[in-house]
Amino acid sequence: MPWPDRRILDLFGIDLPIIQAPMAGITTPALISAVAREGGLGSLPLGMATPDEARAALDAIGEADGARVNLNFFCHRPTPDGPLRADAWQRRLVNYFEEMGLPKPTQQVEQHTSSFGGWHCELVERIRPKVVSFHFGLPERPLLERMRATGAKIICSATTVREARWLEAAGCDAIIAQGVEAGGHRGSFLDIEVATELGTLALVPQVSDAVRVPVIAAGGIGDARGIAAALALGASAVQLGTAYLFCPEARLSPTYRAALESAGDDGTIITNVLSGRPARALRTRLVRALGPLSSDVPDFPLPAFMLRPLSQASERMGRSDFMAIWCGQGAPLCAKQPAAALTRRLAKEACALIGA
Amino acid sequence: MPWPDRRILDLFGIDLPIIQAPMAGITTPALISAVAREGGLGSLPLGMATPDEARAALDAIGEADGARVNLNFFCHRPTPDGPLRADAWQRRLVNYFEEMGLPKPTQQVEQHTSSFGGWHCELVERIRPKVVSFHFGLPERPLLERMRATGAKIICSATTVREARWLEAAGCDAIIAQGVEAGGHRGSFLDIEVATELGTLALVPQVSDAVRVPVIAAGGIGDARGIAAALALGASAVQLGTAYLFCPEARLSPTYRAALESAGDDGTIITNVLSGRPARALRTRLVRALGPLSSDVPDFPLPAFMLRPLSQASERMGRSDFMAIWCGQGAPLCAKQPAAALTRRLAKEACALIGA
Repeated sequence: MPWPDRRILDLFGIDLPIIQAPMAGITTPALISAVAREGGLGSLPLGMATPDEARAALDAIGEADGARVNLNFFCHRPTPDGPLRADAWQRRLVNYFEEMGLPKPTQQVEQHTSSFGGWHCELVERIRPKVVSFHFGLPERPLLERMRATGAKIICSATTVREARWLEAAGCDAIIAQGVEAGGHRGSFLDIEVATELGTLALVPQVSDAVRVPVIAAGGIGDARGIAAALALGASAVQLGTAYLFCPEARLSPTYRAALESAGDDGTIITNVLSGRPARALRTRLVRALGPLSSDVPDFPLPAFMLRPLSQASERMGRSDFMAIWCGQGAPLCAKQPAAALTRRLAKEACALIGA
Repeated sequence: MPWPDRRILDLFGIDLPIIQAPMAGITTPALISAVAREGGLGSLPLGMATPDEARAALDAIGEADGARVNLNFFCHRPTPDGPLRADAWQRRLVNYFEEMGLPKPTQQVEQHTSSFGGWHCELVERIRPKVVSFHFGLPERPLLERMRATGAKIICSATTVREARWLEAAGCDAIIAQGVEAGGHRGSFLDIEVATELGTLALVPQVSDAVRVPVIAAGGIGDARGIAAALALGASAVQLGTAYLFCPEARLSPTYRAALESAGDDGTIITNVLSGRPARALRTRLVRALGPLSSDVPDFPLPAFMLRPLSQASERMGRSDFMAIWCGQGAPLCAKQPAAALTRRLAKEACALIGA
């Protein structure tokens, strides 16, 4: 297919300007492989994975598809008063735990969810993926240099022009311009202010004008119309999360899937109460009760671990009340289709729309 | 120019799928005429006008251009506890009035800013414009029927799929899908919830799928890339506000103009403290101090009138602190150019982008 802008295709060595968003806890090796085999870029989320889980996922993806994979990591920084907030937050959650017949929440964060560091870096040096992507900013320069020495292209999310310029100056090879419509965690790292977040339609051309590296549009793109629009705005490729949630390869419980399918256009909201950082999710009972935004929430990712037993109990009962249903504003645009067929169709339809 | 989608062009009898947004208090007859003469749709904002001001504006536009004009009205409804909040709001403002050496704010709303009714309706019956547009919902059915009997096409803003369906059922001939990026007042009338507002990129295709009437995209469109994107998303035309603010024909003080030019990508926020309804404006000192969102604010438009002396004093001093600087997220994309040249260029460049 004759894509008019080949910058991302040539940079990553892929055939289609479609990137499957990482989506920690949901993406499966089958999903990643399907996207990679069609010529898109599959992304393996490792921000919440243990070394064993990372190894198992990479084994399942296999070497052939692995060459096309993007390894994705988190680069969050703790704040000084984070631990102080944990006790108070625990007290806020107790009633919900009692309602579900659970012992009170603990404050145990699993160690492997620490920000990008030691073992992540060694993994990249061993796997040598085509692309390494970061969320919540970049690691310190020495670690970043080790990544670059592997030959991997480095990309990261920006939610403002200032963040995009910062990432370019730090040496990013491409920038993901993440609009406010996007599901899951805001990539914000310099300007973490929900009320001034930019829509994808306004953000992408401004980021494209501000940096020389190619731009990947993310947020609210649910079908080929969104892809064509993103390319018209100046993006060289798109990153889709919610669209791939609807694939049978996504690891979702029936409760999550049912909630997703009834999301509607305005059923999502940006909340920090599910994880400690602003993220777009369905407005479930817990989000309404504690948020959507709370200045009392402890640092990411502790709240996600505190909520885990509550979320699992809620899920077992078929109730989305206490679950984190990550979802973008484009959900009603998405089709239920296997990942390979979806990727193929999106590319074909987008090509037709842009007259390529 | 061979536009692929002629639905709005044929409906309104215009040549270009570009609508200049009404922008009460800012739009001038010269701006409207310039857009109309190039083949776009000029919009005359009458929501804040007296009968005399309306007559003067229509005289200045003249019959030839008047045939192409869209007359725009507000359809806000007062809430039962509105008057109760006025006293408390007055007390909140006193310090700022004192700082600027002004007597304390009054609670006088000028009568002509009432919601669409008697004289507005008679004006439309006399002028018989091509298009009548509403913001904040539609007037009662008998008034709407009188509008329709003049032959005018009726359009209105929607910010959700539910509002779009409601407007179609009420007989609208086209729907303006207003994304969260848009400057000025949110058109929301069924779902007035800022935190769940949709980005233009997610809203436009969902509204296009939900209604049969043609859709006009608004919000964050600052240049031809935005127009091409909106058309790819399924819109039949676009409505631009902020882009026309940059024209010399817009009635802006030097202070407003300077603030606008330094807006940046993330300098705006949705606030209700400037007028009583959520609207996107620059985050000036008053917005930071009282908002951005306050549940104490009296009903629209009383706060705008209470603030007027403060705003005017601020403006005279060349300080934007207490001014309402309406502005969308696309401001940095906009070019300073006379309205006719801007309209021509946007149309030409958008055509080139969509390969028409």
